[in-house]
Amino acid sequence: MSTTGQVIRCKAAILWKPGAPFSIEEVEVAPPKAKEVRIKCGECTSCLNSEGNFCIQFKQSKTQLMSDGTSRFTCKGKSIYHFGNTSTFCEYTVIKEISVAKIDAVAPLEKVCLISCGFSTGFGAAINTAKVTPGSTCAVFGLGGVGLSVVMGCKAAGAARIIGVDVNKEKFKKAQELGATECLNPQDLKKPIQEVLFDMTDAGIDFCFEAIGNLDVLAAALASCNESYGVCVVVGVLPASVQLKISGQLFFSGRSLKGSVFGGWKSRQHIPKLVADYMAEKLNLDPLITHTLNLDKINEAVELMKTGKCIRCILLL
Amino acid sequence: MSTTGQVIRCKAAILWKPGAPFSIEEVEVAPPKAKEVRIKCGECTSCLNSEGNFCIQFKQSKTQLMSDGTSRFTCKGKSIYHFGNTSTFCEYTVIKEISVAKIDAVAPLEKVCLISCGFSTGFGAAINTAKVTPGSTCAVFGLGGVGLSVVMGCKAAGAARIIGVDVNKEKFKKAQELGATECLNPQDLKKPIQEVLFDMTDAGIDFCFEAIGNLDVLAAALASCNESYGVCVVVGVLPASVQLKISGQLFFSGRSLKGSVFGGWKSRQHIPKLVADYMAEKLNLDPLITHTLNLDKINEAVELMKTGKCIRCILLL
Repeated sequence: MSTTGQVIRCKAAILWKPGAPFSIEEVEVAPPKAKEVRIKCGECTSCLNSEGNFCIQFKQSKTQLMSDGTSRFTCKGKSIYHFGNTSTFCEYTVIKEISVAKIDAVAPLEKVCLISCGFSTGFGAAINTAKVTPGSTCAVFGLGGVGLSVVMGCKAAGAARIIGVDVNKEKFKKAQELGATECLNPQDLKKPIQEVLFDMTDAGIDFCFEAIGNLDVLAAALASCNESYGVCVVVGVLPASVQLKISGQLFFSGRSLKGSVFGGWKSRQHIPKLVADYMAEKLNLDPLITHTLNLDKINEAVELMKTGKCIRCILLL
Repeated sequence: MSTTGQVIRCKAAILWKPGAPFSIEEVEVAPPKAKEVRIKCGECTSCLNSEGNFCIQFKQSKTQLMSDGTSRFTCKGKSIYHFGNTSTFCEYTVIKEISVAKIDAVAPLEKVCLISCGFSTGFGAAINTAKVTPGSTCAVFGLGGVGLSVVMGCKAAGAARIIGVDVNKEKFKKAQELGATECLNPQDLKKPIQEVLFDMTDAGIDFCFEAIGNLDVLAAALASCNESYGVCVVVGVLPASVQLKISGQLFFSGRSLKGSVFGGWKSRQHIPKLVADYMAEKLNLDPLITHTLNLDKINEAVELMKTGKCIRCILLL
């Protein structure tokens, strides 16, 4: 972090247009402007309500620009958009006050950076959103980095059965290492996955998690839930402005569909605690990190993610 | 209740075909057959799980016939279907063991009969399904007998604001008498109801209830919820096999959509307690009963319901 008023020149990975590969460039990072965030987070309903965590400040701001509608990044004379309120594919960044959490100064950043999004999203979806109960049966649809973190959350909550579901069998070994008791590939089944899960469990699944962002998978996950008290959590980011492919009948007998963002954690309050849990060896993030590459190799990292060959790839700046 | 083995002849209101008016006829009611229900309810997951109440026996049986696939009613030589596992538009009926609950012998049946469905469905949707919290803000879409029972449940749970929503203004006086703090007619508004409710509450509604069974209203009710921790309960019976008109985006920030059947009450266990609460004057069902007619006038009663002129009409046998 730099608190001086000077422009910094440093290395960053930039997308010049959507869909293009990342380009490694030298960028200029402007100093933070004073009081960019005038209202302190911790005062609105999402922070005050024990069940809420979706930051109103975050929603009201544009994630690709600072609060004054301008960027702090320039490259080759052009203004460069921020990304996701953080812009961390750059050696230096300027972020809003509300996006900062203070963590243990000796925590290894190349590990605990997972707590800032994917791990917490999945782990918290099980712990906070679903409130998985001891002895329960869970099913996790999608065994990428987020889905595997859901598996870890279900295990930590004491679930008796954790059924992993993915079309890529390569994911099953790691899922079982992290807590999955069984794994299924829907493409190997003769019946729809929801019927197979009912056959396997008699009464359906207590807690289902969609960790892909696919409307067909979400419909199958909800239908897989126990029809009376089953809870399905939407962890994946669904396509924008597209309606659910779910019949209203699925709700008649009592099923629930719950949204979840960042695993229900209040980031400033909970990220330091999750980091402390990692430092105390209560959480083990290491199995989720399968690759470490230099920032220059970012396009290789993207390819590893796309082809399902890595779970999480750490980019060293 | 008759426990003799004789056929009973009595009066009943019958539908000879869907959509026809009721016809008052003399019917023959056969005696119950022994052990029609061999497995005692109270043993499967819905009864054992504290959050469940959807009876698996009820689901597995056809509601229009007894468990052996035959009817106990005949009229003019024709077999007559049962209805809704109870068939109560008849002076005598035969029902399955699992459909019986033992209540206080001196309770007035012409009042506490409301506990057997509509009242409990609405009241319990607030108490058991939504788990309305003291001081919260609720909105009830649809102010018929079920919606008004939701209003009563929200009030009993200590909600600070209860906003009633209906296109029929005639419903507002009774809703306010039962606990609604404000009432809105969406047809009088210049903006969609969800925008008006956000304007009125700043952060959206804590607990919304759809008590109609309309997919457009359900979409508006979910959108009216606080985007982080708002809960929308599906109380109305939605059209069969039709998909929800809801964008997946509404779940991104944390909203929940919960199904509810019979208000989450386990009927055998909880109906006697609700009747006891009525007898102890903890519950007042009387304001919900606006009309009392003889069974012969059943078609008038249906017309009163259809035109929104009555809340609940008791049919005297």
